Amino acid sequence: MSPTTSDAQLTAPRLPDGLDTPAVVVDLDRVDANVARMQALLDGRGVALRPHAKTHKSPFFARRQLAAGAVGVTVAVLGEAEVLADAGIDDVFVAYPVWAVGAKADRLRDLAGRIRLAVGVDSVEGATQLGRALAGAADLPEVLIELDSGEGRTGTSPGRVVEVARAVADAGLSLRGVFTHGGHAYRGPDRVLGAAGDERDRLAEALDALHAADVEVAVVSAGSTPTAVHASARPITEERPGTYVFGDRQQAHLGGSDPATLALAVAATVVSTAVDGGCVLDAGAKALAKDKPGWLEGHGAVPDLPGAVITAVYDHHAVVRLPEGTSPPRVGDVVAVVPNHACPVVNLTDELVLARDGEVVEILPVAARGRTS
Amino acid sequence: MSPTTSDAQLTAPRLPDGLDTPAVVVDLDRVDANVARMQALLDGRGVALRPHAKTHKSPFFARRQLAAGAVGVTVAVLGEAEVLADAGIDDVFVAYPVWAVGAKADRLRDLAGRIRLAVGVDSVEGATQLGRALAGAADLPEVLIELDSGEGRTGTSPGRVVEVARAVADAGLSLRGVFTHGGHAYRGPDRVLGAAGDERDRLAEALDALHAADVEVAVVSAGSTPTAVHASARPITEERPGTYVFGDRQQAHLGGSDPATLALAVAATVVSTAVDGGCVLDAGAKALAKDKPGWLEGHGAVPDLPGAVITAVYDHHAVVRLPEGTSPPRVGDVVAVVPNHACPVVNLTDELVLARDGEVVEILPVAARGRTS
Repeated sequence: MSPTTSDAQLTAPRLPDGLDTPAVVVDLDRVDANVARMQALLDGRGVALRPHAKTHKSPFFARRQLAAGAVGVTVAVLGEAEVLADAGIDDVFVAYPVWAVGAKADRLRDLAGRIRLAVGVDSVEGATQLGRALAGAADLPEVLIELDSGEGRTGTSPGRVVEVARAVADAGLSLRGVFTHGGHAYRGPDRVLGAAGDERDRLAEALDALHAADVEVAVVSAGSTPTAVHASARPITEERPGTYVFGDRQQAHLGGSDPATLALAVAATVVSTAVDGGCVLDAGAKALAKDKPGWLEGHGAVPDLPGAVITAVYDHHAVVRLPEGTSPPRVGDVVAVVPNHACPVVNLTDELVLARDGEVVEILPVAARGRTS
Repeated sequence: MSPTTSDAQLTAPRLPDGLDTPAVVVDLDRVDANVARMQALLDGRGVALRPHAKTHKSPFFARRQLAAGAVGVTVAVLGEAEVLADAGIDDVFVAYPVWAVGAKADRLRDLAGRIRLAVGVDSVEGATQLGRALAGAADLPEVLIELDSGEGRTGTSPGRVVEVARAVADAGLSLRGVFTHGGHAYRGPDRVLGAAGDERDRLAEALDALHAADVEVAVVSAGSTPTAVHASARPITEERPGTYVFGDRQQAHLGGSDPATLALAVAATVVSTAVDGGCVLDAGAKALAKDKPGWLEGHGAVPDLPGAVITAVYDHHAVVRLPEGTSPPRVGDVVAVVPNHACPVVNLTDELVLARDGEVVEILPVAARGRTS
């Protein structure tokens, strides 16, 4: 798990025979290894694990994470929380600055009545609107304030956190804590340690500011898979990695996943070798997605074809360039593709082929697929 | 419809009020205009229209295209053909070099018994396997041989087309024709005319080679939305554009769509303005996809925010940079995003909000969503 992983080290799960490709295969032994490893790492650090469910969108995997010791689940959208709640999972944090109007306001009220819910905000307006949406509700979600730790996406600054905390209080809501996502870790293997440090530093500054204003919070939450691996504890009390459950090519290169236990692969058939220099697979952008960080060449790794680069993905085609002098595979061969980013791959498929060492265990519908709001 | 379109010319459909964002809105008046325009263009040229259904994945829109004069429908995968067949659409071409084994062989036999089916091949092996898979079947699909016209993806060369045609005959199958996809048109507005010419030239060379071997075919099929707009007829008898039904930002820049009738937009809420210089929308890569040609800046257009650039999309966030000196929109504002590429957007959503001039007409489930094989 060092940031010097190369594609040659990646191993895909063994594919079951006879799949109707493209198919998304998840090896449960590898999932169990990944879940246990992250839990042990954070247990050893005395930090709670609240895994992000946007990776698997499935109560099936959330239950395994909870059984291994996770304190609850993180989601990005209310639809994911609803699917988890329907499946009996009762402690969910929506790590997103939800704008609570219309249907979303109704859905928030309903969820808060059913489970232990927490919601993110990053502005006075967001906190005020949340209070307005929940006025008179019997059960209220707790609130965490998002801080930007250098990603430049969402999140307020330590200098404004007290102002937002006051708006939370004025809205009649309880402040559970502060949270951040050091997503700039994904800008390259050389950025991970810095991003983990930025998460810690911005959270510490926010805590200092709150403390000076006599506001105390219970939870200090950080995380992404690579920063969770490389983080220190204090002042962080909770990490929210998601992708670690499956791992992917990007995570392996960032040191967030063990390249020996990558649990998810897309099974693809070679459908053409008509154009010289390579081959074409039937897993395109509608199976692999188009996530490709600038520092990583190609749209996924193909361990069965050493040196291969997926130079382009179209909706239903992946174009693979093979090293010069290499014979192409035969049309009809089935290969495993390790995607760059597992989360959108799961969101694109209706079902996962759960396997153990190449034997199908179960076909699992992706329960929260398509829940984007 | 010239390749000099700028983002400032793009108009999004009017959004209905009160949407739970992100939501994919399709304006039916604009769809009707787009369908009628392409049909009239090809009618005027004496060329048949067989629209690609991978854009809409919906019998609803296929029926409108057929009612306007399309001769049948094109799809990329058997799953799309199955959904269309279930809805009573009885003439479908799978424009893909299907490798017919296992479940796919069974599904092909079933489909060929239910509708008028045609399938692509681009190799001797593919044709031979198709014959093997269909041996003894009462109803057989017709075959079209794919030619590569410069995209460098799938498709044989004019020099090998006779060899593939003989394999089709040896497999006991009827050859309907040849087809190509000048997908290199998508490499930039300056490539469209050349790609349309390449389609015509490669198809003509293939026809010459087949003719010299005493093989005659009925159908000469080309197409993508931009090349269909800019193509000439002879020797092309059929065009297979897909995206024209909705249009998108990329098509408008390529001259494939009228920027005044772009029919699809993603409604998104401004959820954060906490980071200086822009705002964040709740439509991320799981709503907009990540399709971004190198010649186009940003991950979609936001006509409501002139000069705005979507600099990054994460699973559930779009980061928008605003021109210097511009005030950000208010948190809670709803804006329309014109996506770069409509096809993956439709594939990502469970439903489309059908509207006419801002009034909701119907919520349409995407019937073939998730059918990737």
